[in-house]
Amino acid sequence: MERNILLTIEYDGSQFSGWQIQPNAVTVQGTLEEALSKFCDIPVKLNGTSRTDAGVHALGQRAGFSGDFGIPLDKLVFAVNNYLAGGMNSLNHVGSVRIKEAEEMAPGFHARFDAKGKKYRYIISREKPADIFRRKYAYSVTKPLDIEAMREAAQQMVGTHDFKAFQSSGGHERKTTVRTIYRLTVEEKGDDLVIEVSGDGFLYNMVRIIVGTLVDIGTGRLAKEQVKDIIESKDRQRAGHTAPAEGLYLVEVYYEQTQLG
Amino acid sequence: MERNILLTIEYDGSQFSGWQIQPNAVTVQGTLEEALSKFCDIPVKLNGTSRTDAGVHALGQRAGFSGDFGIPLDKLVFAVNNYLAGGMNSLNHVGSVRIKEAEEMAPGFHARFDAKGKKYRYIISREKPADIFRRKYAYSVTKPLDIEAMREAAQQMVGTHDFKAFQSSGGHERKTTVRTIYRLTVEEKGDDLVIEVSGDGFLYNMVRIIVGTLVDIGTGRLAKEQVKDIIESKDRQRAGHTAPAEGLYLVEVYYEQTQLG
Repeated sequence: MERNILLTIEYDGSQFSGWQIQPNAVTVQGTLEEALSKFCDIPVKLNGTSRTDAGVHALGQRAGFSGDFGIPLDKLVFAVNNYLAGGMNSLNHVGSVRIKEAEEMAPGFHARFDAKGKKYRYIISREKPADIFRRKYAYSVTKPLDIEAMREAAQQMVGTHDFKAFQSSGGHERKTTVRTIYRLTVEEKGDDLVIEVSGDGFLYNMVRIIVGTLVDIGTGRLAKEQVKDIIESKDRQRAGHTAPAEGLYLVEVYYEQTQLG
Repeated sequence: MERNILLTIEYDGSQFSGWQIQPNAVTVQGTLEEALSKFCDIPVKLNGTSRTDAGVHALGQRAGFSGDFGIPLDKLVFAVNNYLAGGMNSLNHVGSVRIKEAEEMAPGFHARFDAKGKKYRYIISREKPADIFRRKYAYSVTKPLDIEAMREAAQQMVGTHDFKAFQSSGGHERKTTVRTIYRLTVEEKGDDLVIEVSGDGFLYNMVRIIVGTLVDIGTGRLAKEQVKDIIESKDRQRAGHTAPAEGLYLVEVYYEQTQLG
């Protein structure tokens, strides 16, 4: 009997060439499909909700697959996680990707098409000199930042806008570049600046360009008053730089309208 | 005029194939020598105090070089660190190795031969499930550990002993396998167990075998009463497993007898 499974997955993006499977590269999708196929004993093909780029991390990526296989879900998660961690020896070094949860869904459910929104976190480290041990986990910005200006700019991005100016070329062609941002917060946590954004969907590199634009406003390269013009221009050249992949974390994928925000 | 320089260096070992220069691999020594040669404008050859293996980190590695070059030391450190961080743009992503300090030494001084001792730290993460983001920075041990037994065993290792049982093959041949451990502590820090050891010198993999033996005592695979026998046996097979490189940090190299401990 065909089963329809939804996985919640976390991974350290520094160890992978991104989510999407590709030849001659270690990808999250490829690594997971190999392990799932092994223990389900059928060829597993995953539908990921977000094609995270190389270096981007995930705390709550979602991916679905369906097939006729026998192993109970809790046993599957245990076996796959042990396999990905390098064996059954609990003293072994843990792996860089882990299934956090597996759920049996109704037949018609689709991980990507049924997603109602996403939440991303972006971590900026302001330590000086930069902490070399966080190179793959945060964006080091040592210039002084005007955080109030960044917050005011962020508020102007919230809402439903055409975010074409905040899209890199190279992603999939989209029917529309209009998106809704529900929340966009800039919080200080110790030496870190943590930017969180949730919305109904994000264009290619949109979060990284939002962050880069906020940083450029923080350093004074751009003015907070320019945000409205940048959005209206629909011109990528007008927005700020693309912040590096390393600081970006996919935190959550929402499936219920009520979870949004 | 020949100048004799002592560097203090930190690096994230996960990004390098160890300290020692080798063809077709990114090593700390190779990376630093290239940058130093560029800004000193002479071929620089580094004498590292410790040939850390692939994956081993350093907070205070020391390395020396000498040569006739003009650039003042503070300018050299600034230029090399900027170069290693990826450019002069302070917004750029920081690198995985950094010179913390550079000192002008007397002509006869030698970074390795004059070292009087070293201090290492080893980090064990007891989080369950293991934190995938610390895979390269700590050793995940999820089995329960008898920390008091580990502490008592550690105390028996302190002092001057023949540590042949705590040496891996593959290192350089040593005249003697007698070493003195000054301090060996096992401390709980949140979910982590932090083991620190200082001594006058360490055999190949000695710290990792000490830690592996302590973990095996903590899990009950070995008994704390066996430590004396293991040392006296001089037999590598009797000691515990070699803990992985990822949890190991070279903290400090001592040059003055008074600094020891």
